[in-house]
Amino acid sequence: MRVVDVIHKKRDGGELTAEEIGVLVTGYSRGDIPDYQMSAWAMAVLFRGMTSAETAALTLAMAGSGDQVDLSPIHGIKVDKHSTGGVGDKTTLIIGPLVASAGVPVAKMSGRGLGHTGGTIDKLESIEGFHTELSRDDFIKQVNDIGLSVIGQSGNLAPADKKLYALRDVTGTVESIPLIASSVMSKKIAAGADAIVLDVKTGSGAFMKTVQDAEELANAMVAIGSEVGRQTAAVISDMDQPLGFAIGNALEVEEALATLKGNGPEDLTELCLALGAHMVVLGGNAATFDEAKELLRGKLASGEALDKFRLFIEAQGGDGRIADQPELLPKAPFTIEVQSNQSGYVNAIEAEQLGLAAMMLGAGRETKDSVIDYAVGVTLRKKVGDEVKQGDTLALLHVREQNESAAKVGERVLEAYTIENAKPATRPLLLSVVTAEGITRF
Amino acid sequence: MRVVDVIHKKRDGGELTAEEIGVLVTGYSRGDIPDYQMSAWAMAVLFRGMTSAETAALTLAMAGSGDQVDLSPIHGIKVDKHSTGGVGDKTTLIIGPLVASAGVPVAKMSGRGLGHTGGTIDKLESIEGFHTELSRDDFIKQVNDIGLSVIGQSGNLAPADKKLYALRDVTGTVESIPLIASSVMSKKIAAGADAIVLDVKTGSGAFMKTVQDAEELANAMVAIGSEVGRQTAAVISDMDQPLGFAIGNALEVEEALATLKGNGPEDLTELCLALGAHMVVLGGNAATFDEAKELLRGKLASGEALDKFRLFIEAQGGDGRIADQPELLPKAPFTIEVQSNQSGYVNAIEAEQLGLAAMMLGAGRETKDSVIDYAVGVTLRKKVGDEVKQGDTLALLHVREQNESAAKVGERVLEAYTIENAKPATRPLLLSVVTAEGITRF
Repeated sequence: MRVVDVIHKKRDGGELTAEEIGVLVTGYSRGDIPDYQMSAWAMAVLFRGMTSAETAALTLAMAGSGDQVDLSPIHGIKVDKHSTGGVGDKTTLIIGPLVASAGVPVAKMSGRGLGHTGGTIDKLESIEGFHTELSRDDFIKQVNDIGLSVIGQSGNLAPADKKLYALRDVTGTVESIPLIASSVMSKKIAAGADAIVLDVKTGSGAFMKTVQDAEELANAMVAIGSEVGRQTAAVISDMDQPLGFAIGNALEVEEALATLKGNGPEDLTELCLALGAHMVVLGGNAATFDEAKELLRGKLASGEALDKFRLFIEAQGGDGRIADQPELLPKAPFTIEVQSNQSGYVNAIEAEQLGLAAMMLGAGRETKDSVIDYAVGVTLRKKVGDEVKQGDTLALLHVREQNESAAKVGERVLEAYTIENAKPATRPLLLSVVTAEGITRF
Repeated sequence: MRVVDVIHKKRDGGELTAEEIGVLVTGYSRGDIPDYQMSAWAMAVLFRGMTSAETAALTLAMAGSGDQVDLSPIHGIKVDKHSTGGVGDKTTLIIGPLVASAGVPVAKMSGRGLGHTGGTIDKLESIEGFHTELSRDDFIKQVNDIGLSVIGQSGNLAPADKKLYALRDVTGTVESIPLIASSVMSKKIAAGADAIVLDVKTGSGAFMKTVQDAEELANAMVAIGSEVGRQTAAVISDMDQPLGFAIGNALEVEEALATLKGNGPEDLTELCLALGAHMVVLGGNAATFDEAKELLRGKLASGEALDKFRLFIEAQGGDGRIADQPELLPKAPFTIEVQSNQSGYVNAIEAEQLGLAAMMLGAGRETKDSVIDYAVGVTLRKKVGDEVKQGDTLALLHVREQNESAAKVGERVLEAYTIENAKPATRPLLLSVVTAEGITRF
């Protein structure tokens, strides 16, 4: 089998066999197949697409290209969650203890942040003493004991995906739905998930700009799940602004705690309940989505979700008192108000700009070696739909120093807001859910 | 300008500027742009195509990537000819002296053969003493003196095309009409042509399988010519069998001599007259194609074309006596008859198989370092449309030794013939001509 013939076949609209895809992925991973053939193939895929069978074969080949985590010693159905990412996305901090309190084990490997998006591990490490370097045995024991553990990604998960993703990034082949879908799913499968719930964002601030694109991506990922025997559900939500109000590590932990107490922002609470309920259904602890959601609401109201969070933090060496005393979290010495220079209604908030602003304050990493300041960040006072008057505070900067660079960040935050005379139409947060049974639109 | 943005633009159907294409070609040629970006771009071009302006910009950028031959010291309009290649294609040997005898200067750089197709230089070197290593000054002087010189390709002509072609070959991006067209034209322009006549083959034995494809390629090349100020004409001819009867270096020189004497095979003569007449028109020595063709027929009949050939051979150190005594050419010691094992009509002859057969006898190079045996080769006795009886001689092998490997070659030649009961429909050799004025179909 010559690689160029496989490229020809895809280019001319043929369907590749699992064997052909396997040879491509293995050869590329090993370095036997050069980048220039892989990029030509990826461009052909971008134009021709892939069938469900091809996409599944690619996913399995990439999942099998490195270490594969064995979570079988953990009792129950292991349901993983993936978010297509976003500024101020602290859903894992909430969903983990929430779902675990409903009896579904959560054995999660998470990453650190780079650039303008934060990482779950960074957020957790803002809690004094918390550590994520557990041995595999301790990780499994903790999940079996208390139902929840979050550790850093270790080992060599889906290296073929990593290599292909880096290549796609510089060859104009990122925007292929089957390639995006197989990239996400390969990592989840290598990480040992039995079932997967996907949090797919759409809107101006998301990678998928339209609901149609988001649904197509969700469909592709759910189809892969069906092909490879991992039940998968996807929740599509609108993202024309950051989720909740807080951006920055300790600030987001604080907001997560409020949400676990039932006092969180409505958008964040709704999304966590929706994602969590699907996890509970796939985990086998509720028959229907509505039943699962009621179960989870009860766990928030009873304090069991918060208790689970405290247990989890303490199990990994952290100061569990923060669950009830969030004031123990790192706190920036100064705050700076960002005031509106006009009156009207907030029509949009550019999440990426806010993420960059938080990073510039020290909340994120510009390079892999940057040191994070856990205390700093941005908290929003106004969100889309809110009325503002000139001089109103739009957001607060939590800063280490009151200097000129902090002032520059303030300008960036101000620019992230679009304020117009007209009140924007209300847009629902949750748009649709895709499962193997089909699409439900809200 | 980021390369990935240029790839995006082409991928999404945009038209690249000459500047963007120039940056791509220059960067790639220098090694600043990696293969993997260039192959992704080429695949995007394959799907999206290129406009005439883009194709012309690519051609000029590739032509400008290395040496550019200056033929301006040669008097008159320098018309070059390009053939998309083929087994037994000895048109240059005939057209060169024929056109020169009609007063149009022919300053030709030719290549050596590799694989199953022979090179003009190899054919000429089968004439004792003939050499192709002329200095630039001697080359120009010879063309000004006698109207004709053929030398080996030297220097570094269109290296960007060479590099891109090698990449396309292994990335499934050969079959793009604008990329093929710009590849051909860039080399001709770098070689200093004022005007270009293209010999485009179509049919089962050619790269362009259908007349439509061949016309599309011809159109693309003629459009480039118009864009860059080089008048271009393309003759599209059928190639379901080798041209003429001879395959092998000295054997082809012998056939070329017969043609220059007016006794050549009809297909070869017709194609040479058609291509040559277009060269004479573009060279400004005739007002119409028909007038040019009559002029050339006269040069064959009067012996002036043959005289020009003798002069040319002698000017480059060769034994001019072969013009009248072709028996002085190298001759293989043995001939072997390939006999038909069935009766019927020849319906097709696979040219590529015959080219490989001749190569196996020693007429071509398997690798760059192979030494050529000028005497050996294959001469056809039957061509498409001929009736054969079982036992009739289809072809003669001209061999150095009568051994088992020669017998194997005989089997390959036999297999190249398709003999069926039905007489095939007669197909015209010349199908259409494409010029800046449009397409003329015969």
